[in-house]
Amino acid sequence: MRSDTLEVRTGGQARVQDLTHQCAQFVSGEQDGLLSVFVPHATAGVAILETGAGSDDDLLATIDQLLPRDNRWQHRHGSEGHGRDHVLPAFIAPSITVPVLGGRVQLGTWQSICLVDTNVDNAVRTVRLSFLAG
Amino acid sequence: MRSDTLEVRTGGQARVQDLTHQCAQFVSGEQDGLLSVFVPHATAGVAILETGAGSDDDLLATIDQLLPRDNRWQHRHGSEGHGRDHVLPAFIAPSITVPVLGGRVQLGTWQSICLVDTNVDNAVRTVRLSFLAG
Amino acid sequence: MRSDTLEVRTGGQARVQDLTHQCAQFVSGEQDGLLSVFVPHATAGVAILETGAGSDDDLLATIDQLLPRDNRWQHRHGSEGHGRDHVLPAFIAPSITVPVLGGRVQLGTWQSICLVDTNVDNAVRTVRLSFLAG
Repeated sequence: MRSDTLEVRTGGQARVQDLTHQCAQFVSGEQDGLLSVFVPHATAGVAILETGAGSDDDLLATIDQLLPRDNRWQHRHGSEGHGRDHVLPAFIAPSITVPVLGGRVQLGTWQSICLVDTNVDNAVRTVRLSFLAG
Repeated sequence: MRSDTLEVRTGGQARVQDLTHQCAQFVSGEQDGLLSVFVPHATAGVAILETGAGSDDDLLATIDQLLPRDNRWQHRHGSEGHGRDHVLPAFIAPSITVPVLGGRVQLGTWQSICLVDTNVDNAVRTVRLSFLAG
Repeated sequence: MRSDTLEVRTGGQARVQDLTHQCAQFVSGEQDGLLSVFVPHATAGVAILETGAGSDDDLLATIDQLLPRDNRWQHRHGSEGHGRDHVLPAFIAPSITVPVLGGRVQLGTWQSICLVDTNVDNAVRTVRLSFLAG
């Protein structure tokens, strides 16, 4: 298995950050296998969705509605409502696997691999990419 | 890694489609490893749940409630409320892995591997099955 | 692939049960690869989150809100509202993979691998751990 990390600057706002290009580069030159995308943070997740057509903002609005940034959370520190960022990874897991054939991730036309980071207190996040050949 | 696709006819209604039989057939004759079930579409997901006892309809009703098919979505095209189908894969991911031992998927008694397709505008969907031996 | 099961006593209440120690032990002595954590039950999921600082209770409260334990569910048996436990695995999947390097799971500082079991009718649950070397 080949494994490496990349740093992603998500800044001080909730963010859906497209990582498809970095993932494609990482498996380029490989043969067949599974790509694991894993975020070693307790307040972020990985999702596969269409970007650039409104769905990234739709997702952030949905998260705001289902996991409101208010004072209901027992886990309290940092910005108001930060506790909801700690519940997020249960619903948008920090781990996803994608099949790779001939060095190409087998995404559909409209799919992008994205970091979903609603945490406004950490501007830089780490993502681990691993390729397990088969 | 052995990988193949299958076509699933989900029709013009939201649908939870059981794929367990196709998955079992795909890994039959293999030894141990991981089965990856991946849907290369931006408006569908893969879930493992009990089917045939009401939970498939319960899931669709829950999705209708958490992601209403109305005009709140920025992503707009096709049927009314279709934008919610583009948010679905963030919560019901298009990728899941299942352990395989001696050519048998290690599902529990009541578990089925299902395609969750709320998109009413695409009647036929592709699913990619991949087996990584170990 | 090496695979084994463990039994987890979750008792008669909804529970977020930390499995990090058992996962770390399972891959100790291995080299690089992917750890698959899979729950062969139709009413439980696996999540990676911070434990011991309130987020486990925050998660259970969120589940109670998004999937209420009431009589709306078509799937009815056992305790009142048990149908919601059968919808849970669609949102908190019973399967997650974690990269392993040099026999150590590559979790972030605040991440724990947890069994999420809202089913109050089954006190003992099985979890399957599998390690696929690469």
